[in-house]
Amino acid sequence: MVIGEVVGNVWATRKDETLNGLKLLVIKAINQDNKEKESTFVAVDSVGAGIGDQVLVVKGNAARKALGREEAAVDATIVGIIDEVEVTS
Amino acid sequence: MVIGEVVGNVWATRKDETLNGLKLLVIKAINQDNKEKESTFVAVDSVGAGIGDQVLVVKGNAARKALGREEAAVDATIVGIIDEVEVTS
Amino acid sequence: MVIGEVVGNVWATRKDETLNGLKLLVIKAINQDNKEKESTFVAVDSVGAGIGDQVLVVKGNAARKALGREEAAVDATIVGIIDEVEVTS
Amino acid sequence: MVIGEVVGNVWATRKDETLNGLKLLVIKAINQDNKEKESTFVAVDSVGAGIGDQVLVVKGNAARKALGREEAAVDATIVGIIDEVEVTS
Amino acid sequence: MVIGEVVGNVWATRKDETLNGLKLLVIKAINQDNKEKESTFVAVDSVGAGIGDQVLVVKGNAARKALGREEAAVDATIVGIIDEVEVTS
Repeated sequence: MVIGEVVGNVWATRKDETLNGLKLLVIKAINQDNKEKESTFVAVDSVGAGIGDQVLVVKGNAARKALGREEAAVDATIVGIIDEVEVTS
Repeated sequence: MVIGEVVGNVWATRKDETLNGLKLLVIKAINQDNKEKESTFVAVDSVGAGIGDQVLVVKGNAARKALGREEAAVDATIVGIIDEVEVTS
Repeated sequence: MVIGEVVGNVWATRKDETLNGLKLLVIKAINQDNKEKESTFVAVDSVGAGIGDQVLVVKGNAARKALGREEAAVDATIVGIIDEVEVTS
Repeated sequence: MVIGEVVGNVWATRKDETLNGLKLLVIKAINQDNKEKESTFVAVDSVGAGIGDQVLVVKGNAARKALGREEAAVDATIVGIIDEVEVTS
Repeated sequence: MVIGEVVGNVWATRKDETLNGLKLLVIKAINQDNKEKESTFVAVDSVGAGIGDQVLVVKGNAARKALGREEAAVDATIVGIIDEVEVTS
């Protein structure tokens, strides 16, 4: 899983019907060692996350399992809102 | 999922038969934090996307699910045409 | 699989219910050729690993198989605590 | 899928038996935006590709589906020989 | 699949039981175009590879298929010992 910050929203009227009703958020992955920003990607929210939250995101087939929707056109899902990350350097 | 711009078309006469009738588009992924261009790749269209559109692309097994074709030789599918992306910096 | 060092803990109260009871650890991947640090990510522990341990991590669908939980919202699992890595240069 | 150029052949006498009879080709991925060379990898040919051809390659589980061999030890398959790529800049 | 060189061994006493009896080797991926070293990772051996061998490695679900162990905690398997790679520049 990756740790990222929710930095934006995505709106798409014309989309795969399995995405209807799902909240699409832009995530900025953050390296926990040097705190550098890494790539951005889009994930579906399953835990009520919002802008500014630090979240845990699962990718691949597990993203659909997390949604409980095997047929969804989804490859990344937010599965946790992070309270604290403690990294030793 | 990743956000990208549709920048081109691909034509292939000799190809896997499961690709027959599918539209193959070149996608340029775009980092939503700094707007830098990232890698390019090819995705199958499922929503009527065209050159210049900003699109949402799903990868991996979900790409076949989005097409409703489990046996297709596909690992990336356009699943949404993006109306707006709002990113807070 | 990748070799990494356990460098931190992650706490999330609001999370996918399949993550309940699982220990979430921050892993720093390490290139075994030049010993440079690579990306960080989060993995679930299945072998009793702790901060400072050098571990073997499996990703993708195998991460859920390692946990014995096909439905878990997990894409990376620690599957070994490394005693020694011997690399010839 | 990715676009690449076939740049080489791989021979391996001692190999997984599911690879017997398959042609293994070295592919150089090419960024379609700036035409820079990217990584190289090995793919199995399913369409009669040869050195110098520009090809479409599918990765992951779809690579085995393209071969029609679910049990093959394969994660990348050439699924098309590209006639033309038209990219707008 | 990727081409790499076997550069090391990994020993782990405490590990997932599905890894018992498997040989864990450190692989250094090598770009076949410019011969630059790329990332390192760990793969399970299925063909009798040893230090210094140039090998073909399959990743993802195919890695478990190559072992014939669907339940193994494995995401990379050596599936061939390379006799020769011929790359045209």
